[in-house]
Amino acid sequence: ERTYRIAVIPGDGIGREVVPEGLRVLEAAARKFGFRLHLDEFDFASCDYYLKHNKMLPEDWKERIGSHDAIFFGAVGWPEKVPDHISLWGSLIQFRREFDQYANLRPVRLMPGIPCPLAGRAPGDIDFFVVRENTEGEYSSIGGSIFPGTHREVVIQETIMTRIGIDRILKFAFELAQKRPRKHLTSATKSNGISITMPYWDTRVEEMAKSFPDVTWDKYHIDILAAHFVLNPDRFNVVVASNLFGDILSDLGPACTGTIGIAPSGNINPERLFPSLFEPVHGSAPDIAGRGIANPVAQIWSGAMMLDHLGETEAGAAIVRAIEQVLPHKQLRTPDMGGTANTVTAGKAIADAL
Amino acid sequence: ERTYRIAVIPGDGIGREVVPEGLRVLEAAARKFGFRLHLDEFDFASCDYYLKHNKMLPEDWKERIGSHDAIFFGAVGWPEKVPDHISLWGSLIQFRREFDQYANLRPVRLMPGIPCPLAGRAPGDIDFFVVRENTEGEYSSIGGSIFPGTHREVVIQETIMTRIGIDRILKFAFELAQKRPRKHLTSATKSNGISITMPYWDTRVEEMAKSFPDVTWDKYHIDILAAHFVLNPDRFNVVVASNLFGDILSDLGPACTGTIGIAPSGNINPERLFPSLFEPVHGSAPDIAGRGIANPVAQIWSGAMMLDHLGETEAGAAIVRAIEQVLPHKQLRTPDMGGTANTVTAGKAIADAL
Ligand SMILES: CC(C)[C@H](C(=O)O)[C@@H](O)C(=O)O
Ligand SMILES: CC(C)[C@H](C(=O)O)[C@@H](O)C(=O)O
Repeated sequence: ERTYRIAVIPGDGIGREVVPEGLRVLEAAARKFGFRLHLDEFDFASCDYYLKHNKMLPEDWKERIGSHDAIFFGAVGWPEKVPDHISLWGSLIQFRREFDQYANLRPVRLMPGIPCPLAGRAPGDIDFFVVRENTEGEYSSIGGSIFPGTHREVVIQETIMTRIGIDRILKFAFELAQKRPRKHLTSATKSNGISITMPYWDTRVEEMAKSFPDVTWDKYHIDILAAHFVLNPDRFNVVVASNLFGDILSDLGPACTGTIGIAPSGNINPERLFPSLFEPVHGSAPDIAGRGIANPVAQIWSGAMMLDHLGETEAGAAIVRAIEQVLPHKQLRTPDMGGTANTVTAGKAIADAL
Repeated sequence: ERTYRIAVIPGDGIGREVVPEGLRVLEAAARKFGFRLHLDEFDFASCDYYLKHNKMLPEDWKERIGSHDAIFFGAVGWPEKVPDHISLWGSLIQFRREFDQYANLRPVRLMPGIPCPLAGRAPGDIDFFVVRENTEGEYSSIGGSIFPGTHREVVIQETIMTRIGIDRILKFAFELAQKRPRKHLTSATKSNGISITMPYWDTRVEEMAKSFPDVTWDKYHIDILAAHFVLNPDRFNVVVASNLFGDILSDLGPACTGTIGIAPSGNINPERLFPSLFEPVHGSAPDIAGRGIANPVAQIWSGAMMLDHLGETEAGAAIVRAIEQVLPHKQLRTPDMGGTANTVTAGKAIADAL
């Protein structure tokens, strides 16, 4: 029997409420498709862990989760307990970097039953992927300040891009575009304003495109690209972007499809040298944590992406279909989507549909 | 008679087509409200100028436009002639910096007659300002590359924020919020990912807020803020942002109100030590240049902002009302707004309405 070892990290806030529903659906899929999940749950990478241990992760975190087949992650961050730049950099960002999960993959798809905030769009109209560089770029922690606390204070932070880092994410994105029917790729740039790194990004895109003659491509500056997500979302197929631009686009894209509450993401190490991590795009939402009303769909959909990555593509597709089947029913949706279900009933409904 | 000396710079592409319509309406306003405009037109800050002189501006550009009361600017850039990072950095960005136009003010307003891409929104629902820091931050040109042309290439660009730079834009934004009925300010941040400059930005916002106890404020990370522009645009009143984030938000905001084709902007030196510059948010649009179909509304609305800045507030408001009066009529709108007018007829209609 095929067995997958999964590291389960619920994290903070609603992460702890939606992860169990994600697992419920994953286990239903395992039964149905004849594979086994070996689950190990960890309490680190959470603000409560930090308050107890004064660090986000144990010393040996790499040994403890580094040989799992994948990481099933909830959400981390609770600003009233620990500042975000400590909790997130000490866990999620560290996983992404040290496990070299350089491709952050986020589907943007208009699902049935979700009222679309854009006028006149129907399911099928919006269906693309944002591919985000996930390790370098604008998220470097290099920099500092001079004359702190004075009128003359100057604060500097460096954006660092490498040819290796850019080329491998572009290759990933072009390969994805090549597999999709429309075979089109869009690059997010800002070479008219960010005058050193972004022109470099552009030249690497041009270069990489030569190796994919069957893929058409274009580029937009990030400001007008964000505008087109609203005005012409049907234009996109695969959008590749730097760390920061990808972060923005992969919240904006799901917003255009109705709610970021259901968007999943994969933090992928394509070479499979390290475990990849699957998590909802939404955060830990301290404001609604503990009330049992969090929307579990993003976590469940992340599970589908995880199965797909593990090679259980049929099971992954079946979970997405189960989500699509359940979403149109108000009584099976959580309140954020205008429904009356709670986290558990919404999760059970999808497991049952499967 | 009150006289204002205006430097007129049409620039490239459709800039040359919409600036004359902007002037038509400005002159109509001058006649009606009893002031005079002394106009000096310049051909520099355009790609054609660059092709002739191998630079975007003459040596003495500061003397030639530095003592005008304002600059009425079209658009610059034509990538097939001159790369954007040369044409824009050699003109527009230089004006912004050397004339210390540190406040970029961009209204986001749903206008009558414009179909809104967001479902269920009506004029009045969306009405806020984006205040963008316009001189520093992510748009620094400091950085470079090592090992160029090799596999090991690393490219670095620095984001530089100063206390002076942040504090003065925050003060401008808080003062604007104070003047508006809702007295609310939203700060765009990304302190959970951009770990040095953005936490610093946040502390300056907290500090500045103390001087404006009558203004309520909140902050959002840029990713979720972009999402809320789509999901809850009625939530915003004044949004203050760094150079890059402001750039993105001030295209995204107008997109959410139907078309960035009509959005104006002011590049303002609040201390009035240098002329402020007023320009449409849209660019030079080489693809439709020369066809006489460019939408002149953004240029005309920019003229209204310019008059407001010059103290002719009544005239400025009258132009905005004239725009609002004309927009609902299809035959007076350009094709980008589903109308049948050309640039000149659309401009004349607004001048007539005035
Ligand atoms: C053309 C470009 C450099 C400019 C900017 O990014 O500032 C433009 O997008 C704007 O918003 O005025
Ligand atoms: C929480 C934050 C650091 C993170 C990011 O910006 O990468 C989040 O927004 C995301 O998109 O996963």
